[in-house]
Amino acid sequence: MIKNKKYSVRVRVWIDETNGPFLGIGRIWLLEHIAETGSITNAAKEMKMSYRQAWQLVEDMNKQAEAPLVEKLLGGKGGGGARLTEAGQRAIKTFYSLEKKINDFVSKESSKIKF
Amino acid sequence: MIKNKKYSVRVRVWIDETNGPFLGIGRIWLLEHIAETGSITNAAKEMKMSYRQAWQLVEDMNKQAEAPLVEKLLGGKGGGGARLTEAGQRAIKTFYSLEKKINDFVSKESSKIKF
Repeated sequence: MIKNKKYSVRVRVWIDETNGPFLGIGRIWLLEHIAETGSITNAAKEMKMSYRQAWQLVEDMNKQAEAPLVEKLLGGKGGGGARLTEAGQRAIKTFYSLEKKINDFVSKESSKIKF
Repeated sequence: MIKNKKYSVRVRVWIDETNGPFLGIGRIWLLEHIAETGSITNAAKEMKMSYRQAWQLVEDMNKQAEAPLVEKLLGGKGGGGARLTEAGQRAIKTFYSLEKKINDFVSKESSKIKF
């Protein structure tokens, strides 16, 4: 019996640093939300995570990166805002460009699979 | 300040069928455990999942594949054994060979990332 199914390949990409996972799509979304909303508090809300969890992720990323990705700003309600550094903006671009290269390779391989 | 961190890229691979995820490393491990132990019950135990869950995964895989990957054998205690079909053995090889090709590509890209 020939079912004639169609298959495709999907990958998920992480960049690890010596001490553990550094950047995956979840952290990239957090960085993007910080850039859009101007604060860790608002970014956390949009991602339905606690402020504490988002803050911890930012701390980890800043330590794991060569240069901090997020800069905390002083003052204002709720402990001030936050913005991406140049390194933070570059990290997003580097991640997506890597993901795209891998996905391009994967789609080529995808068309070749046979079961 | 130069921290001189080292980064590497890691991917996780899935093969999807039109109706959803078909094969990922978890399902491949289940197939391998069925091959080793000769039964879904024992494979489930080794993977610390319920028999019901393992059985459901096998049902899903068999439906999503062009030809069933696991063949259930009649009789014996605990409802009889199970073994991989030729298609099941081939599925494992296809998955690992695809994963290897993607990992080879990824390590090349990995050495190029700069933050």
